Amino acid sequence: MTIGVGVIGGGTVGGGVISILTHSREHIKSTSGVDIRLVHVADIDTRKFQGFDLDGVQISEDAEELLHNPSVDVVCELIGGIEPARRFILEAFRQGKHVITANKMLLAYHGPELTQAAASVGVELRYEAAVAGGIPIIKAIREGLAASVIRSVYGIFNGTCNYILTRMTYDGLEFGEALSQAIERGFAETPPDLDIEGHDTAHKCLIIASLCSSSVINLKDVYVEGITRVTHADVLYAKEMGYIIKLLGIVRTMDDSVEVRVHPTLVPEDHLLASVRNEFNAVYVLSEATDATLYYGRGAGRMPTAGAVVADIIDIGRRNRNAPMPAFVFNAQRRVRPIGEVESRYYLRLTTLDRPGVLGKVCTILGAKNVSIASCIQKEEHEERPVHVVLMTHTTREASLRSALSEIDQLDFIREKTQVLRVL
Amino acid sequence: MTIGVGVIGGGTVGGGVISILTHSREHIKSTSGVDIRLVHVADIDTRKFQGFDLDGVQISEDAEELLHNPSVDVVCELIGGIEPARRFILEAFRQGKHVITANKMLLAYHGPELTQAAASVGVELRYEAAVAGGIPIIKAIREGLAASVIRSVYGIFNGTCNYILTRMTYDGLEFGEALSQAIERGFAETPPDLDIEGHDTAHKCLIIASLCSSSVINLKDVYVEGITRVTHADVLYAKEMGYIIKLLGIVRTMDDSVEVRVHPTLVPEDHLLASVRNEFNAVYVLSEATDATLYYGRGAGRMPTAGAVVADIIDIGRRNRNAPMPAFVFNAQRRVRPIGEVESRYYLRLTTLDRPGVLGKVCTILGAKNVSIASCIQKEEHEERPVHVVLMTHTTREASLRSALSEIDQLDFIREKTQVLRVL
Repeated sequence: MTIGVGVIGGGTVGGGVISILTHSREHIKSTSGVDIRLVHVADIDTRKFQGFDLDGVQISEDAEELLHNPSVDVVCELIGGIEPARRFILEAFRQGKHVITANKMLLAYHGPELTQAAASVGVELRYEAAVAGGIPIIKAIREGLAASVIRSVYGIFNGTCNYILTRMTYDGLEFGEALSQAIERGFAETPPDLDIEGHDTAHKCLIIASLCSSSVINLKDVYVEGITRVTHADVLYAKEMGYIIKLLGIVRTMDDSVEVRVHPTLVPEDHLLASVRNEFNAVYVLSEATDATLYYGRGAGRMPTAGAVVADIIDIGRRNRNAPMPAFVFNAQRRVRPIGEVESRYYLRLTTLDRPGVLGKVCTILGAKNVSIASCIQKEEHEERPVHVVLMTHTTREASLRSALSEIDQLDFIREKTQVLRVL
Repeated sequence: MTIGVGVIGGGTVGGGVISILTHSREHIKSTSGVDIRLVHVADIDTRKFQGFDLDGVQISEDAEELLHNPSVDVVCELIGGIEPARRFILEAFRQGKHVITANKMLLAYHGPELTQAAASVGVELRYEAAVAGGIPIIKAIREGLAASVIRSVYGIFNGTCNYILTRMTYDGLEFGEALSQAIERGFAETPPDLDIEGHDTAHKCLIIASLCSSSVINLKDVYVEGITRVTHADVLYAKEMGYIIKLLGIVRTMDDSVEVRVHPTLVPEDHLLASVRNEFNAVYVLSEATDATLYYGRGAGRMPTAGAVVADIIDIGRRNRNAPMPAFVFNAQRRVRPIGEVESRYYLRLTTLDRPGVLGKVCTILGAKNVSIASCIQKEEHEERPVHVVLMTHTTREASLRSALSEIDQLDFIREKTQVLRVL
């Protein structure tokens, strides 16, 4: 079957999609049976389309022209951001067109609205490229693992953060130095805040949580902690205890609730996620029948992301137009657990004056809140300067730990806010 | 939509499928919209169905009854082996029913015939469970990566072999000891020949090669070497040089040819495949747009395999019945490269008397065939007993290496056939 495609946005990903559609049309047709015809492209700066072979393809500055072109069956929204992307997508639905997007932020804020709008006219909204770029993780979760209940997902969803943490772990850099290197090498946006503060991971994590819990999740309920407070000392102490620090997006579903959280996490060094280095992404999924599976690949970049967009086009070409696949199924109402209810093991790094009785006082306070210690290391003794004491707790409820720490951080020998990292 | 399912075979996987369909019908319906009704089960030993809640499900000794039941839309063939599985599947197609199978051996021998038979009546033949059990690798290759040309696939497809090699690598066991342990722990069939001689991996590799090359591949053209000749000494020397030995199924596509081979392979220890331990499987795929992706999970076992079968049922329920997905597309004619044409780096372990001039003679013969040496280690000096000399070559054509080795193994100081392993 033939399918007419319009691409809004001639940037990195849009350019990649145009490149695949102009160079690989025959390959795709011969292997999938779907003949994808690029019919229309739009960008406010049409100079971006120079250098592509767009013979016979309509080029517009105004996306509205593309949205009203009757030859366009599928619209690829590749401009990012909330508006005008949202408006374009809603208009595409009104025109009876399927939409493919790589826009995780828009899905995180307006997923339910867009799902409903697509369903009301019987078209599809697809977004494989929005999470983990070239890794077909949406397909794996919705289709490959469709027979089992998904219990938990642990993902390295942000290549910038993983690159920075890899440099801190293996090259001994501090956060700031590693960030500069990431920017230099083109692995980080400027400003890099969405990445390093964890929000980009939160957007992707919310999408995965919505799929796994069949529930509407509000972004404000997602606990988000970035990697800016992770120091090289933390990386070293973690390594000494057999862990690698990764920024994880975590989803865990329970009968009536769901955990959705983003934070730097100590991953045991023999866990596959610990071996995922540099700008690569990976998603570890535990499901009832299938048990553990892991998906690894490039989470960003022009061609991997464009490949995911084009795979979605092919899927639409292959599927039953009379039974469109819903973008999300929201037929459950699991509440998001507040972070205080989460249970985890914790890594604590205290910065304290090296005086007798310090550890005793700290452990007494922790014990009173039922937080028990699994192991302890104390670095460099020095009577005058503050030293680091690193504690690893047994599994405990975050609220109990927080309550103990608010007391500990008041002690006169504690010289900095205690560093807290969760353990996988 | 409602879909009626018949299961032939009440063994490990069949029982798992029945268990999922009886316990998770509501979950599957609510998340996928597909209502799967188990209507008929068959096994020559119907006692296998005791212990399942099969109220309202027809039970037959004779699979023909199931194949002619008009309420059955999809037949799951889960008996394995060539006949009568092949006959049952062909009859199912004649009755207009879709078929799902986990039978890699049957697909390896009769894939083209079955593909053609399904296409001629417009039904689907699906086989996600046949390769790498719980890992949705068929879906990833056919759909997730549909936009790119797949250049190469390196897979750990056999859990038994990976378990044995893991024990040899980390517990210092010889092959025979590790095999006994695998049998004891239920990770190996008895007799284990199909696994340890590499044939099971070859069946799966042929399926992947057919998908990636769009060509009919004959099993007799697949180079197959199992793990029975790998010694603990090889595992140790490989480790010393920074490699882990894995049994890989390898597919590489070129314009007019395809490499399909199965053999123990030295994998660099920082490669993700090297971290895949015990009975787990993993598949590493290099494709043009998407670059590297890896898929990891349980390659066998009741529930992971059954989960893959049920995911295929759900997919059939969701798809366009007017445009069935072909099992394989055979519209190219890439020839399989004979192993002699393959290029690789090689690990050579010579067993030789420790005399002056040995290395010189060996290297002269290799050099005359244009095989150059990248590194060399010699273990334990001893004037009387034979010693091991381990050589790592640069990339060379296998035919040249074989020709040199046939001379080397004639030298009077060489005491055993030289061990040859390929390097990733």
